[in-house]
Amino acid sequence: MNTGFIEGGICAPKGFQASGVHCGIRGNTSKNDLSLILSDVMCSAAAVYTKNKVKGAPLLITKEHLDDGKAIAVICNSGNANTCAPNGIEIAVKTCELLAEKLEVKPEDIIVASTGVIGQPMSMEPFEKGIPEAIKKLSDNGSEEAAFGIMTTDTVKKEFAVKFELGGKECKIGGIAKGSGMIHPNMATMLCFLTTDAAIAPELLHKALSADILDTFNQLSVDGDTSTNDMVSIMANGMAGNVLIEREGEDFNVFCAALNQVTSAIVKALAKDGEGAGKLLECTVTGAPDKETARTISKSVITSSLFKAAMFGEDANWGRVLCAIGYADAEFDINKVDVSLASAKGKVDVCKGAAYNEYSEDEASVILKEDEISILVSLNQGEAEAKAWGCDLTYSYVEINGSYRS
Amino acid sequence: MNTGFIEGGICAPKGFQASGVHCGIRGNTSKNDLSLILSDVMCSAAAVYTKNKVKGAPLLITKEHLDDGKAIAVICNSGNANTCAPNGIEIAVKTCELLAEKLEVKPEDIIVASTGVIGQPMSMEPFEKGIPEAIKKLSDNGSEEAAFGIMTTDTVKKEFAVKFELGGKECKIGGIAKGSGMIHPNMATMLCFLTTDAAIAPELLHKALSADILDTFNQLSVDGDTSTNDMVSIMANGMAGNVLIEREGEDFNVFCAALNQVTSAIVKALAKDGEGAGKLLECTVTGAPDKETARTISKSVITSSLFKAAMFGEDANWGRVLCAIGYADAEFDINKVDVSLASAKGKVDVCKGAAYNEYSEDEASVILKEDEISILVSLNQGEAEAKAWGCDLTYSYVEINGSYRS
Repeated sequence: MNTGFIEGGICAPKGFQASGVHCGIRGNTSKNDLSLILSDVMCSAAAVYTKNKVKGAPLLITKEHLDDGKAIAVICNSGNANTCAPNGIEIAVKTCELLAEKLEVKPEDIIVASTGVIGQPMSMEPFEKGIPEAIKKLSDNGSEEAAFGIMTTDTVKKEFAVKFELGGKECKIGGIAKGSGMIHPNMATMLCFLTTDAAIAPELLHKALSADILDTFNQLSVDGDTSTNDMVSIMANGMAGNVLIEREGEDFNVFCAALNQVTSAIVKALAKDGEGAGKLLECTVTGAPDKETARTISKSVITSSLFKAAMFGEDANWGRVLCAIGYADAEFDINKVDVSLASAKGKVDVCKGAAYNEYSEDEASVILKEDEISILVSLNQGEAEAKAWGCDLTYSYVEINGSYRS
Repeated sequence: MNTGFIEGGICAPKGFQASGVHCGIRGNTSKNDLSLILSDVMCSAAAVYTKNKVKGAPLLITKEHLDDGKAIAVICNSGNANTCAPNGIEIAVKTCELLAEKLEVKPEDIIVASTGVIGQPMSMEPFEKGIPEAIKKLSDNGSEEAAFGIMTTDTVKKEFAVKFELGGKECKIGGIAKGSGMIHPNMATMLCFLTTDAAIAPELLHKALSADILDTFNQLSVDGDTSTNDMVSIMANGMAGNVLIEREGEDFNVFCAALNQVTSAIVKALAKDGEGAGKLLECTVTGAPDKETARTISKSVITSSLFKAAMFGEDANWGRVLCAIGYADAEFDINKVDVSLASAKGKVDVCKGAAYNEYSEDEASVILKEDEISILVSLNQGEAEAKAWGCDLTYSYVEINGSYRS
């Protein structure tokens, strides 16, 4: 059986339909602002949420709904984050009730999410118009329309799927996501909805997702700001027919690896399409004493404004990499650290043992002209490794986020 | 006796001379690159250093030299940070030896510092030429030349002094500083040298400085990057003739208050002249359960890239303030939080109880056109307060830090 990336996004797994419509939350009628995902049968479901103390109303409702580890549908609007809105909880509750009524399911089995400007009142009117339309448009090739419906300042849709095998059964995982963008610049929200036809118990699904985000979504930074509405959810409907995964073991590991393929692809796409971004930055830390140290250091590098600006300028300013490694909140010996910069055009070893290593600036300049830049950090004091993803800091970032909301 | 701000910078306190010269570390001969401060008599001395694991060689040497709490002179170059340089320690040691020989003092009584590009080899040649010249130029109105000598991309000198009284004796504290700028863009270094003629024991001086930075230098952020060469030092020569401060009490408190006047002025000047900055941002958090919570929240607000970009755009985007409060690493009830934005032109209460509060966008727009913006955060859950200072995120920041080193 072939494994690896396939087409179809969230509708690639059996038994999932999706749609996206314009319901009127945004002024621009050519842009979808409401997306729906529906499974043919009840799913195991899990989600992880922003750690920000300010949380969008939909997140609070979704958290309640997923208490029993079950869900059958996702409804998500863009154009208004439903956060700090006077009637936020009421709107999120009513949205679920309305959808549940039309689908003849329970409101508690619905995942609800919003993205857009915060602190603005919402009205039910667009949902009353949009939900019936979204239901009517549901189809098993609706993933792309749904991906468009959750986008804000994203410039490209994020939609991936993989095929894998569990006990001889073909399984699939699909995902759509939106990145750190904003309609009226207000809030960098990251939303991701994952679907799978693998059969897996809710606790194991939650375990897989919680472990995965440590090395994917949590290792992504566009501007260091943690939004109020971030959420990653996954629904597993079991329609692939594999033996239910109820404990850790080989099947669980295969599932986790497939999940990681999808989420890694999504995270890279989100970093590459960060606000104003021109380049994807991937920092790989190897030789770390432990995994957490590797994660912390790699994330520190791709979060440094100074380094991000240097990458925009295509400047092999390795001192800024070393500086960001040095202020990372971790315990290690800085004097053993080597740094290289690489891309499709080659690799330069710019720093050995925390000191300048002679290299060709001309070669570095050619390497840094590429769109995808790797920063390779060898700590030389252990076996653990981790990656983190970010983007360069550009004039456009300032323009997008500095312009008036109106 | 009059108290408050006076002229004269680091030479305002009795018995301090200073100078600045061009010694050839920089190519631009019109820019000073070596500064010297000398006390007539031995001083109590203390310093605090960057927490970055990568530390400039001069910091390591200064730390050794201040082990005994004594110093008589400061030597500081700009144009090369002497960090990750192959011969860094040797250069820092030889610089002190050379200066000590010419001044007929001990090398261990010298504070040495550097700022500029990192990872570049240094030569003793400029010091051999510059140190005798700097000694020759020493004068009691040399503070300004010394302030120029430590500047990198700073656009204005930072030089302040205050007068105060201890037991009927007139005392003074002066300071010069350089901000988050870079000659070749490489490293945002903050250096500050303080002088005072007050008599205070080394341990108490260290205590005063260590406590003060928690509310001043540590509450300052230009871009979130902690440099390898940051240092704040203070020398107290006792020439004011006050009774030696050897324990905490009224005199110590008066000294600390005067110190805070100087360091607060310096920190605001550094924030206002942050790289590419157009506006000074001051966030005041009140009603906090404890001081540390107030510090953490105020610093989180002025560090947010999203909020900094909004201030560049003069956009009353209060959701970003609330977002940054929400992800601050502190324990408090977000639902009680009020936020106002203010300047010389007035004040708008934009958020009450973590929700939108109706205000006039026109009024907000007029307020945010000013150069100095206050963000007022009331937590309404205690008595503690703190401030933090930063600047807006502008196209110029990206330009300065994105341009090629060459």
